[in-house]
Amino acid sequence: MIRKYRIGNPIPTDSVIEDIPVSQDGIPYFNVDEEAKELSLFLEKEDKIFGLGETVRGMNKRGWLYTSNNTDDPNHTENKHSLYASQNFFVVLSKKRKFGVYVDTPGKVSFDIGYTSLDKLAVVFEDFDADIYIVTGEGVLDIVTGFRKIIGRSYIPPRWAFGFGQSRWSYMTADEVREVADKYEEAGIPLNMIYLDIDYMERYKDFTVDESSFPEFPKFVEEMKTRGIHLVPIIDAGVKIEEGYDVYEEGVKRGFFVKKDNGENLVAAVWPGRVHFPDFLNDEARAWFGDKYKVLTDQGIDGFWNDMNEPAIFYTEDHLGEVFEQIEDFKGKNLDIDSFFAFKELVGSIDNNPEDYKRFYHEYKGRKIRHDKVHNIFGYNMTRAAGEAFERISPDKRILMFSRSSYIGMHRYAGVWHGDNQSWWSHLLLNIQQLPALNMCGFLYTGADIGGFGSDTTEDLVLRWTAFGIFTPLFRNHSALGTRRQELYGFENIPSFRNIVRLRYALIPYLYSEFMKAAMGSRMLFKPLCFEYGDDRSSQVEDQLLLGESIMLAPIYTQNAEGRYVYLPEDMKLVRFRAYDDYDEEIMNAGDHYVRAGLDEILVYVRKGHALPLAEPGQGLEEVTASQLKYICYEAEPKSYELYSDDGISRL
Amino acid sequence: MIRKYRIGNPIPTDSVIEDIPVSQDGIPYFNVDEEAKELSLFLEKEDKIFGLGETVRGMNKRGWLYTSNNTDDPNHTENKHSLYASQNFFVVLSKKRKFGVYVDTPGKVSFDIGYTSLDKLAVVFEDFDADIYIVTGEGVLDIVTGFRKIIGRSYIPPRWAFGFGQSRWSYMTADEVREVADKYEEAGIPLNMIYLDIDYMERYKDFTVDESSFPEFPKFVEEMKTRGIHLVPIIDAGVKIEEGYDVYEEGVKRGFFVKKDNGENLVAAVWPGRVHFPDFLNDEARAWFGDKYKVLTDQGIDGFWNDMNEPAIFYTEDHLGEVFEQIEDFKGKNLDIDSFFAFKELVGSIDNNPEDYKRFYHEYKGRKIRHDKVHNIFGYNMTRAAGEAFERISPDKRILMFSRSSYIGMHRYAGVWHGDNQSWWSHLLLNIQQLPALNMCGFLYTGADIGGFGSDTTEDLVLRWTAFGIFTPLFRNHSALGTRRQELYGFENIPSFRNIVRLRYALIPYLYSEFMKAAMGSRMLFKPLCFEYGDDRSSQVEDQLLLGESIMLAPIYTQNAEGRYVYLPEDMKLVRFRAYDDYDEEIMNAGDHYVRAGLDEILVYVRKGHALPLAEPGQGLEEVTASQLKYICYEAEPKSYELYSDDGISRL
Repeated sequence: MIRKYRIGNPIPTDSVIEDIPVSQDGIPYFNVDEEAKELSLFLEKEDKIFGLGETVRGMNKRGWLYTSNNTDDPNHTENKHSLYASQNFFVVLSKKRKFGVYVDTPGKVSFDIGYTSLDKLAVVFEDFDADIYIVTGEGVLDIVTGFRKIIGRSYIPPRWAFGFGQSRWSYMTADEVREVADKYEEAGIPLNMIYLDIDYMERYKDFTVDESSFPEFPKFVEEMKTRGIHLVPIIDAGVKIEEGYDVYEEGVKRGFFVKKDNGENLVAAVWPGRVHFPDFLNDEARAWFGDKYKVLTDQGIDGFWNDMNEPAIFYTEDHLGEVFEQIEDFKGKNLDIDSFFAFKELVGSIDNNPEDYKRFYHEYKGRKIRHDKVHNIFGYNMTRAAGEAFERISPDKRILMFSRSSYIGMHRYAGVWHGDNQSWWSHLLLNIQQLPALNMCGFLYTGADIGGFGSDTTEDLVLRWTAFGIFTPLFRNHSALGTRRQELYGFENIPSFRNIVRLRYALIPYLYSEFMKAAMGSRMLFKPLCFEYGDDRSSQVEDQLLLGESIMLAPIYTQNAEGRYVYLPEDMKLVRFRAYDDYDEEIMNAGDHYVRAGLDEILVYVRKGHALPLAEPGQGLEEVTASQLKYICYEAEPKSYELYSDDGISRL
Repeated sequence: MIRKYRIGNPIPTDSVIEDIPVSQDGIPYFNVDEEAKELSLFLEKEDKIFGLGETVRGMNKRGWLYTSNNTDDPNHTENKHSLYASQNFFVVLSKKRKFGVYVDTPGKVSFDIGYTSLDKLAVVFEDFDADIYIVTGEGVLDIVTGFRKIIGRSYIPPRWAFGFGQSRWSYMTADEVREVADKYEEAGIPLNMIYLDIDYMERYKDFTVDESSFPEFPKFVEEMKTRGIHLVPIIDAGVKIEEGYDVYEEGVKRGFFVKKDNGENLVAAVWPGRVHFPDFLNDEARAWFGDKYKVLTDQGIDGFWNDMNEPAIFYTEDHLGEVFEQIEDFKGKNLDIDSFFAFKELVGSIDNNPEDYKRFYHEYKGRKIRHDKVHNIFGYNMTRAAGEAFERISPDKRILMFSRSSYIGMHRYAGVWHGDNQSWWSHLLLNIQQLPALNMCGFLYTGADIGGFGSDTTEDLVLRWTAFGIFTPLFRNHSALGTRRQELYGFENIPSFRNIVRLRYALIPYLYSEFMKAAMGSRMLFKPLCFEYGDDRSSQVEDQLLLGESIMLAPIYTQNAEGRYVYLPEDMKLVRFRAYDDYDEEIMNAGDHYVRAGLDEILVYVRKGHALPLAEPGQGLEEVTASQLKYICYEAEPKSYELYSDDGISRL
């Protein structure tokens, strides 16, 4: 059951699509402290908290302070409070009680979950205006499904988006892209997407293609498509200020950019230098920007990723000017502890400064609203612009779309990737731990940058991460400018990479079926063990996942490990894959095990009474569709597995 | 057996005190590539690499690139190559072969341990000049002891330095220090040291005390000592440029500061703003600076910590001037991807810029040597200045001393703390993993900042970290300006903290005995399991430690964990302490176990045939000395344990 409560006078977010009347009762479970702008509840020792989407730390969110305040911060260390997304749904779970809470506000809100005090959960608002949904149900999965139903069906990508994708900031020319495709082909590693990061554009202008480095783009798109490869360009939130650039000129003329209090368009800067930000919260501006994607779909593009939409701000022109003036004061001085750090702070305040969010305004639902009040739904509405437009531009066929920034509601229009992570072993674990929390909030088409985006990677990390990544819907290797190259063909163990990625393709019938069932049924694709198993030990497991109905995963995420501990809540069949057609099976008893796994092995645990379909991977997606399936079963018949299939491209 | 080889014309470091003739044979195991300035060896799959002291990542160093290049960088994330120390000793270990390698060079050197290529270890030099020691022996412990014998006996602190210490950047006044002492007393938590961070000084001038905030300092030192508390002030590497300040004026007059190529004293900046750095590599300057510690020992101080001695440099005056000039070029421009990041890089180049190491020179052993060539022995020689002086100033009694920066050789004069870590769970694990590597390099009196220095901590992290920290010789809680307070009395579970810290005091007879035996016998205090157990599984364990002869530790280092997996290489007796006098014992069989441990429990595994002495902790160190011991034994007699005891203060 879901009840809706209201505090203050909330700005709507359009995240909930069901019309639920506001209850006049007091909010259950919580103490309301209007003065402190706080809702709080006493945590019992057994209470565990799950949810909040894409955040740092473990699955059980107790013991830290999480702040919804979308931020472009690539250092996802344990001390961070905010990442790119605001996904304000969580569940309180123990044997004694279970309920879900959705805090719907587009502004800044913190979740102090046993941080200040070990046994207190406090939701602390900047503005005490929000809709609060309390979700109850039989079990935690019911609660999640109940919540998911009111926020609407999750985005469904084309089936080809379950292939493997290679990215890099950036492949600079069409020839470089061809080389990537060639080398994957030579290595016998299937590939279905190559991502185009910012450098495909002409001077970082959205909806342009640099004609010198990517000549005859439509032909190139077609050429790649005949090789089974979709090109997926990036789109940024900022529109370059440049005379003669149509998007800029139209936006100015039609008043579609965000404005300062004095009515002038805000001048901020990102990749191209000075930009204006479209007012994605304004319906007309959103429709206008969304229609621009047609420039690229008309050239054959059928997938995009939206970036920098927190929005990331290198600087605002006004603040940069202030900083340069103040820098003068430090010149020639004896900079000591106070003045030196003041100088560092001054310069550090230039980029991604939350104070800049107070410098501009939106036209949102007929009101002029300062950005900081609706900050967390900006990226959501950029991606919504695209999603709504795709229904016009491509009414029959699905378009691939995922975004960096997000808010609940955006899950109807797109997936997300887990942002600019690092080539750290701890970020492989973070990837594992974020997945169920994202699913709870409606985001099903998700995945992290495999191998890590920032920092130099290592081959063993890429091997282990790829061995996990083959199970995530968005399966992409991506890395940053200046870091070690991490295309799989560049490493020493190409046969291992080939076997791992081909296993992904063999698994697509299962992964796609489970994805579609989760999307259609408002269910989770990745679950913590304790969402299905009621034993105490299961609720302690933070590094294993149930994936769909048939399998459990226990990935290796530490360097030099030749194995790991695995907890089995019931008997399972361990399948040790060396390749899709080379594996051993072993029945393992419920309980704790130390299980070895070589760098070239992928271990899957098949649950009792379940079957896992496997396809012949061939060289890519098409073969997978056509192939005969075989099944790995554990006390189940192949026919017990309900396969989902469709044409993979028609809108549903 | 130890053999010494020489490449090029190395600058001596004084780290090895035994006179070993240079062998004219080729260096065993390694390929020498003079052109590439590289020694390399092929790694077999089974080879594990241990050592390198205070570095990031796990115990087995395979899979990353470590660079000895002492650096003041507080973000100890997995991608870092250099921290504060250069400790160039490592062991190659497998069933088939085992040998130690010490690369003795004061300059920059990298250890590419299966990073570039999974099965190649390369030692890559900036200057191809070094002494290479190859150490062989019966087993890995023999190899370590063999190496430790040629570098001389490890530093031995006074016994009181095994008490608990509280620190903070900074306690600003004597009254604030008194309050800390009072609150610990009220909480019934023993405390033997309070650390004074930079603010006790007058304008951050070494060897001064601010008279307004710490009036009548000698009386205050005495007052605290009567309460059993030693005040331990910090000393920084930079000497403030200030007319009338004796250390500055003497240093200038006697030519004891490092100089630029033109003969002028280098002007750099740290806390007080502009400073000169003493030339610790110059014998006379070192003796002069060392004698300055007498200013404080004369006021009753008997312990110090040396900081900022990599050296940390906020800026050099010359480079800062250049930067301010170049900043002009960016003013008023449209800063885009190139120019914006160029601007950020320019400003980022101000502090701790390795290029600054080329701006100044030392007088070292009769030669003028540019700093970058001897960079890694700078902090070592600052601390050596103190250690050598203490033998003159305090010929009978030991003085507590530990340093942030270090090089092998410094272990004879002081301990180290693990530098400016963070309040991250991953840094509790890093603390565990760094200990044996530090021991291998001679550093026995070590410990990390418990609870984490940077970032806001959480009570559960402090509980778990303290429960591990009671086993480390240096047992100190320390945190940074601006972060959440983390004195133990400020949390909710004071009884748990009291029991944990008192257990430390009950363990002091054991810890001090094992420490002294390790120091006198050139042995390790903390060992990876596989240094004693030959089974395959032991060599996989990266989160458990053998501590001395009697016990094994398996700390909990993840948030919300109610237990953890533990591997027992043989049967052991698990002792589950709730307090020093409240515990259960249980025999556990060799093998893998999942073991529960509450936030208030400390688990110790007593090894078969061994005994663990326990004292009555009373309220502090004095009671521990006088008390009767009881023993927890596992198939052993109390008398089988060889207790070490001395007066705890006389030099040995």
